[in-house]
Amino acid sequence: MNKYMEEANNLARDNLKTKAGGPFGACVVKDGEIIGKGANHVLSANDPTAHAEIMAIRDACSKLNTYDLSDCEIYTTCYPCPMCLSAIIWANIKTVYYGNTKHDAENIGFRDDFIYDFIFDLKSNDGDNNVLKLTKMDRDETIKVFDEYKNSDDNEIY
Amino acid sequence: MNKYMEEANNLARDNLKTKAGGPFGACVVKDGEIIGKGANHVLSANDPTAHAEIMAIRDACSKLNTYDLSDCEIYTTCYPCPMCLSAIIWANIKTVYYGNTKHDAENIGFRDDFIYDFIFDLKSNDGDNNVLKLTKMDRDETIKVFDEYKNSDDNEIY
Repeated sequence: MNKYMEEANNLARDNLKTKAGGPFGACVVKDGEIIGKGANHVLSANDPTAHAEIMAIRDACSKLNTYDLSDCEIYTTCYPCPMCLSAIIWANIKTVYYGNTKHDAENIGFRDDFIYDFIFDLKSNDGDNNVLKLTKMDRDETIKVFDEYKNSDDNEIY
Repeated sequence: MNKYMEEANNLARDNLKTKAGGPFGACVVKDGEIIGKGANHVLSANDPTAHAEIMAIRDACSKLNTYDLSDCEIYTTCYPCPMCLSAIIWANIKTVYYGNTKHDAENIGFRDDFIYDFIFDLKSNDGDNNVLKLTKMDRDETIKVFDEYKNSDDNEIY
């Protein structure tokens, strides 16, 4: 077994005992070294965003003191949910190794597939559905902050 | 202007001065009361996941001591990126009010639209693209943890 995936899998297996969250683990690797680890802590942290990949990314960023993980890879025991997949892209990671599929996650009771399908549907059906009601409001005011940002000349884009 | 959107917009505007991150703000509301606030802190926290909605959800969960925000609404100054949209669904929030659109975010330099398009493409093109290389690995080992989880009878599904 790949040694980084094995570490991620050990983190996932630990959760079977600790019940900190679902059976998911991940680690971020840079230049062959594990620089971030995470297991799902949704239950123990009372944080719905505390998925393994998010935790591993936050751990790596904290260690490297940067929000940019361009030169890193991530190993995760399950295909990332859309939240984690997007977090991986925001972190500029370009290589993902995963073990179980999102269908495997669905089979043990998680909504990964459901959320993917929801987002796929948004392409043709923007915000009109039974899962989540998205309503536009007060753009005439909120756009002013964006305009002010755009007109500033010292913005750092991430 | 809606008072909750105004609070979110004030949080976004604060970022123009603090440069803690992009010009985005959000708040979580329960029974008419703001119980979670967040502004984008990607730069100040060196955390690519520290978007306004994620911060507001984590703040609300911390205050309410739960990972379940079923009875809450979220007000955000910009249409949520796929990471935040998925976080909102994981948190069981069902009502989202937003100000600016994801095209507005693209116009000031953010990749929200790009990430949505990337995920839309995954529907027909699973992991074969230039943005992110997703490679399956060692499922024969990682699936064992899922099987063990499935066979346990005291799992809390979130």
